[in-house]
Amino acid sequence: MTSTAHLDPVREALRAAVPAERVLTGDAEREAYSHDDAEWAAFAPPVAVVLAESTEEVAAVVRIAAAHGASVVPRGAGTGLSGGANATADSIVLSLERMNRVLEIDAAERVAVAQAGVLNDALRAAVAEHGLWYPPDPASSAISTIGGNAATNAGGICCVKYGVTRDYVLGLTVVLADCEIVRLGRRTAKGVVGYDLTHLMVGSEGTLGIIVDVTVRLLPLAGRQERAVVGSFASVRDAGVAVAAISAAGVIPSALEIVDGTCLRAVDEWQHLGLPTGVDTLLLAKVDEPGDAGEGAAEAVAERMREAGALGVERATDPDEVARLFLARRLAYPALERLGPVLTEDICVPRGAVPEMLERIEAAASAHDVTIANIAHAGDGNLHPLIIAPEGDEAAKARAKTAFDTIVADCLALGGTVTGEHGVGLLKLPGAAEELSPRVRALHTAVKHALDPAGLLNPGKAFTP
Amino acid sequence: MTSTAHLDPVREALRAAVPAERVLTGDAEREAYSHDDAEWAAFAPPVAVVLAESTEEVAAVVRIAAAHGASVVPRGAGTGLSGGANATADSIVLSLERMNRVLEIDAAERVAVAQAGVLNDALRAAVAEHGLWYPPDPASSAISTIGGNAATNAGGICCVKYGVTRDYVLGLTVVLADCEIVRLGRRTAKGVVGYDLTHLMVGSEGTLGIIVDVTVRLLPLAGRQERAVVGSFASVRDAGVAVAAISAAGVIPSALEIVDGTCLRAVDEWQHLGLPTGVDTLLLAKVDEPGDAGEGAAEAVAERMREAGALGVERATDPDEVARLFLARRLAYPALERLGPVLTEDICVPRGAVPEMLERIEAAASAHDVTIANIAHAGDGNLHPLIIAPEGDEAAKARAKTAFDTIVADCLALGGTVTGEHGVGLLKLPGAAEELSPRVRALHTAVKHALDPAGLLNPGKAFTP
Repeated sequence: MTSTAHLDPVREALRAAVPAERVLTGDAEREAYSHDDAEWAAFAPPVAVVLAESTEEVAAVVRIAAAHGASVVPRGAGTGLSGGANATADSIVLSLERMNRVLEIDAAERVAVAQAGVLNDALRAAVAEHGLWYPPDPASSAISTIGGNAATNAGGICCVKYGVTRDYVLGLTVVLADCEIVRLGRRTAKGVVGYDLTHLMVGSEGTLGIIVDVTVRLLPLAGRQERAVVGSFASVRDAGVAVAAISAAGVIPSALEIVDGTCLRAVDEWQHLGLPTGVDTLLLAKVDEPGDAGEGAAEAVAERMREAGALGVERATDPDEVARLFLARRLAYPALERLGPVLTEDICVPRGAVPEMLERIEAAASAHDVTIANIAHAGDGNLHPLIIAPEGDEAAKARAKTAFDTIVADCLALGGTVTGEHGVGLLKLPGAAEELSPRVRALHTAVKHALDPAGLLNPGKAFTP
Repeated sequence: MTSTAHLDPVREALRAAVPAERVLTGDAEREAYSHDDAEWAAFAPPVAVVLAESTEEVAAVVRIAAAHGASVVPRGAGTGLSGGANATADSIVLSLERMNRVLEIDAAERVAVAQAGVLNDALRAAVAEHGLWYPPDPASSAISTIGGNAATNAGGICCVKYGVTRDYVLGLTVVLADCEIVRLGRRTAKGVVGYDLTHLMVGSEGTLGIIVDVTVRLLPLAGRQERAVVGSFASVRDAGVAVAAISAAGVIPSALEIVDGTCLRAVDEWQHLGLPTGVDTLLLAKVDEPGDAGEGAAEAVAERMREAGALGVERATDPDEVARLFLARRLAYPALERLGPVLTEDICVPRGAVPEMLERIEAAASAHDVTIANIAHAGDGNLHPLIIAPEGDEAAKARAKTAFDTIVADCLALGGTVTGEHGVGLLKLPGAAEELSPRVRALHTAVKHALDPAGLLNPGKAFTP
């Protein structure tokens, strides 16, 4: 490593503001905090990593960065898949993971306030004790933070019926680029005072302010009753036809996921679930209306699956059975990671374009000689082609990146968006530049400049100026 | 009227860009378009009124305004209650009412695109033909436009379960202050590319751009089954207790409205509905789950009403009967308008603070010797105290304004927001300045300056710099 003596003044200033044991400057620590789960994107060890424990410490770090010409890369748990939390050599990584207290749960108002570092599942568990439910459920819910979820507007499986993180954020406490601490939003059920700066911050990937706590609205936990309906299909296209039919039938399932043959085989090789012969793709649905309405919805889903040519349809209402039917979905990503580094795509196309997009993904895999598996939030048209390169095969890695670009271009050609729920970060900067018009990109620059004129906060992420 | 010769160049330029019959400059026409339904706020006849019929004409008007140092006041149907569309003497009122075509309904994607001037009810009817439902239902739905609804983030009765306009807006076409036309947002179910400029525009009251069309997501029309449950109470406080109990029971009704004694008496005097003796307040609920779940929810609501001391509880499932039970709600506002000019409040407090807020409103009525009736979206804590001054009684009108300020201050003291759904416009500028911190107001100024540096678009509305 080259000399880091010029970094000493920043580190000294940080240690004066934050207890020294929470200012990490060792090579291994800086390395560990230098990127999120998007190792495919560029990153470099930061000047230092600060494990902030208070809003005031966050403000102090921003002040020090400004004074020394450093930038600040805010970070939740580092589970992002687009490089939004990747560090640069002149940056301070500001980790919010220690700010992990649920500050308030108001059952009567169905509102909770959580510090940014509270894990999604921890918030979920805390509010469940009060009979309440926080719906957004990214696949990373066990390990990702509510602050990171808000900064990236995280999605998940239940979005198809219940919406995304933004739909549940009522208010935020934010540290601005000038170190001031502001409260945005509200805690009432409705409110239209002023510009919607709360939701502008949500999904801005730490480029407009640093979210230190989040006020979310909650739903009652009771009143839902999960029924799983899982169809097995001979092809991903047949499953796609079933998705379209379910949507057209006016049923809104609480989950509608596709797991394709490549995923299923990877899971089966690993866990030996015993996949029936001829099955290439699973379509996993849940409905959650209680009583006869739920029974009717489940039957409607099953019927559409059968009409689309399902080889078999299984149903379950017992929670353990529901979990068992969804097991392949839960194991798909780790099973694929066993095959080599996974480059995770995250496109979203109109629902009707799902079969066509799946075909184009297959074509991209052939054309670029890479393995691509598909997990999809099919009910939303949000596809996650998982491009796999064998460990250490640099040529395959290069072909994977080319396939990635092909898929992004195909998605745009079909009227889609280049990122459904993972965010732009670094990986989707070219796609975002393609998707947004020059004037809209100029609007982004103007807004960024209005809130962070010095370009201190997570520069280079979320959009291309 | 004073000489208007100096206005001729603007009018000439407008007539060169837009067919002359759609450039209104007569005194009566300018008067008619000089304010929305907030006559209590300041207004003046504009330089001219343009009835735009295309996006290009909208851009041309903005260009002409910029060239002549005029401002642009965008206007839907003028049904706003906060003065957001009130004109100033140097302004051009740009009416979008002629841009009233539904451009597209895509049943498979559950998406519609409507020009700004499409009436809310017209959009609703158009999508219903495709088996789809556009939920946001402001009381003005028969006469207000989707563009105005989006510009003010309009609410309505079903918000308590289904959310507000912003929750249904996926994308917008907007004419910016520099006359450029941009597409914001998306038409896919999910998407996180770039900043959420779409929802920043929604609710910005025409101060950041002029919305010319709106892409909305829709829900299936089928699958709901309305059941009305109406409780009559001896006092508004008892009804408030029932609201809290229903909320605590984990039931989310699709409507939960309070109509107080002053409203009921006004309706009864007008329409002779035959109010039972002892009844002071009605609590009107709907639930819309189908089947036994709906029956259970309706029974739960009825039970909570009885426990809170309801004098009687009526239930209905037949659509005509449901409409009959909600008749008093529908007639309340016109019945009150018969008594004199109505100053409509629009505060939103935490649900638990509803009884306390209702008492404070009663106290404000006594203290300032004015009549205040209450309609409330009680399930959201969104109250509409209607302050009535007899026609022509200027002293009473002044007292009404003082009562209005008292209520705003009380709402803030109880943790509420000064506008739940009507917007800041002009009437709520002082309240908004009280509610938002100086730094947050400075953020508003910065965002406004970033998007409209010359202050061309609806200046002086939505926030105090």
